[in-house]
Amino acid sequence: MSQQIYDRVALIGLGLIASSMGHAMKKWNLAGSVVGHARSEETRKAALEVGFCDEVFDTAAEAVKDADLVVLAVPVLAMGPIAAEIRDHLKPGATVTDVGSVKQAVIEAVAPHIPEGVDFVPGHPLAGTEHSGPRAGFATLFRNRFCLLVPGHARPVAVERLTRLWQGMGANVEQMDAAHHDRVLAVTSHTPHLIAYTMVGVADHLAQVTESEIIKYSAAGFRDFTRIAASDPTMWRDVFLTNKEATLDILGRFMEELFVLQRAIRMEDGKTLHDYFTRTRAIRRGIIEAGQDTAAPDFGRVKAQEE
Amino acid sequence: MSQQIYDRVALIGLGLIASSMGHAMKKWNLAGSVVGHARSEETRKAALEVGFCDEVFDTAAEAVKDADLVVLAVPVLAMGPIAAEIRDHLKPGATVTDVGSVKQAVIEAVAPHIPEGVDFVPGHPLAGTEHSGPRAGFATLFRNRFCLLVPGHARPVAVERLTRLWQGMGANVEQMDAAHHDRVLAVTSHTPHLIAYTMVGVADHLAQVTESEIIKYSAAGFRDFTRIAASDPTMWRDVFLTNKEATLDILGRFMEELFVLQRAIRMEDGKTLHDYFTRTRAIRRGIIEAGQDTAAPDFGRVKAQEE
Ligand SMILES: NC(=O)c1ccc[n+]([C@@H]2O[C@H](COP(=O)([O-])OP(=O)(O)OC[C@H]3O[C@@H](n4cnc5c(N)ncnc54)[C@H](OP(=O)(O)O)[C@@H]3O)[C@@H](O)[C@H]2O)c1
Ligand SMILES: NC(=O)c1ccc[n+]([C@@H]2O[C@H](COP(=O)([O-])OP(=O)(O)OC[C@H]3O[C@@H](n4cnc5c(N)ncnc54)[C@H](OP(=O)(O)O)[C@@H]3O)[C@@H](O)[C@H]2O)c1
Repeated sequence: MSQQIYDRVALIGLGLIASSMGHAMKKWNLAGSVVGHARSEETRKAALEVGFCDEVFDTAAEAVKDADLVVLAVPVLAMGPIAAEIRDHLKPGATVTDVGSVKQAVIEAVAPHIPEGVDFVPGHPLAGTEHSGPRAGFATLFRNRFCLLVPGHARPVAVERLTRLWQGMGANVEQMDAAHHDRVLAVTSHTPHLIAYTMVGVADHLAQVTESEIIKYSAAGFRDFTRIAASDPTMWRDVFLTNKEATLDILGRFMEELFVLQRAIRMEDGKTLHDYFTRTRAIRRGIIEAGQDTAAPDFGRVKAQEE
Repeated sequence: MSQQIYDRVALIGLGLIASSMGHAMKKWNLAGSVVGHARSEETRKAALEVGFCDEVFDTAAEAVKDADLVVLAVPVLAMGPIAAEIRDHLKPGATVTDVGSVKQAVIEAVAPHIPEGVDFVPGHPLAGTEHSGPRAGFATLFRNRFCLLVPGHARPVAVERLTRLWQGMGANVEQMDAAHHDRVLAVTSHTPHLIAYTMVGVADHLAQVTESEIIKYSAAGFRDFTRIAASDPTMWRDVFLTNKEATLDILGRFMEELFVLQRAIRMEDGKTLHDYFTRTRAIRRGIIEAGQDTAAPDFGRVKAQEE
């Protein structure tokens, strides 16, 4: 059904996203070979053991040699140094892409290192779980999820090829400019994560007071927050440091709204609360209709994983 | 395997919780008959159609007649008026319980109406989904979830019998005092819900700016929030109005913590962010170990529903 899109793909960073790409490329025969590099030997070994890489290298420079596609799948702040390391080892005509959660900062850090004759097509798959590392990936992670590409000055032929790769892994590919991407993601992902981390932090202080009951009796609301807040600390630190302006803007708006609801509770203004909650309910319906979720309580995740 | 624990159970309110109880009592043969009342004829009809009630009544007073157990399963602020309506129709020796998400306010509103010779055993199953109404329930909703009872002055024999009912429906029953319950729930459920509602409200304002992209591209963090924020507006209005003090206290602490993280982003203090995120990750592990969740991305919900 599918055909190989790249002869040789090099994954730099072998965590959740890279391992999922590796599994997907193998499952749907999208690449001739998949090679990789990660910082630690432990991760490199795990990648071979799990089997989503055919070969691993001790350095990124060695890994990218002869690769038609190089995927930067490390935390956002690690991308610049890696780009500097690989720049002289890239194959002419190759494409470099990344999967970072922030786009402006990655482009600023990576683009200056891309040599003439190599295309840089930044990307961001809107898919993830709270697990990380080389054993966390699975082939269907990207199925029915969006992958946003920010083509910039890349040649259309390179963008088109990368688009086919992502489509082959099940993603719906769309293009967006970098500033807009960072703003949309600040609302839909970055600020919600910060808030979840904060709420879990509050509970942590109180947990000492109430002898772990807070953990024991955690119900739906909080449980979902802890899942979000279990994501990789380095990845998220980098996201907030590199998408600072947009996150701070959305956070400011969030606090304003929260003050309104806080005041409504204090004043026992039931109408304001009811109206607010009714409005947010409608947004949920919009998301289900947009096909980003299902009405079922599992929101479609398990299905994706089991397919 | 199981034996009937009550001859006749009356469900007042026929939404998510009541319908789940009805399904569970039927599935595991825990009650001789299940009757019910809801405000609207539509809901009463649906209850019969779905089949978790054997009989429905136009008034709560009629429904509780001859019932050995009366379950108040309406929004918290509706409980007092219903208690006043049924007080003279309760069977001597009967038990009244409720499933409200707040306990002090329910006790204040309901206890004065409980006649001599009837036991009042307030309760709260820590289980739910974002769906509501008579078609939302399923028998395994309470499986492996806690149900907190606040026995107060009820006779031990009545408490013990209600405990067996909840255990029969799969719940782990524990006792707690009302003030403590309200505080624990403010942290684990009420404040997280308010925050989710707020974040979704922020996105709603911005959605007009970015032409629905925020909905279209909503990724994990925000999607979970919208699910939480899709819960019934009346139920949650009542929760915040009746658990006001504890919610405002936790909300105050939340804002303090959020200011710390906001400042860390503004000052580009990566160490504070990384340390914070590392700490919250550990809490997640605690929850998984406490058995309130699984490590799988579906957090065990679907499994419960499919069993
Ligand atoms: N997780 C998500 O939900 C998600 C979703 C979309 C996009 N993203 C983006 O995808 C990228 C990777 O995320 P992930 O979730 O796959 O992360 P992950 O599971 O934590 O894996 C990160 C990988 O990067 C390697 N690495 C870290 N620092 C490095 C460095 N300085 N030099 C070389 N390798 C380094 C790690 O190697 P070691 O194991 O040896 O340390 C590991 O293999 C990030 O930019 C993130 O923003 C993540
Ligand atoms: N949902 C959760 O996650 C959850 C979890 C634990 C505890 N609880 C608690 O359980 C209780 C019920 O919640 P739920 O989720 O089952 O709600 P729900 O699905 O929205 O159903 C509420 C039911 O109460 C009826 N009702 C509302 N106001 C009434 C009134 N004034 N008089 C008579 N009946 C009235 C409704 O009848 P109509 O349909 O005719 O309007 C409906 O049958 C609440 O106290 C809530 O705090 C909820």
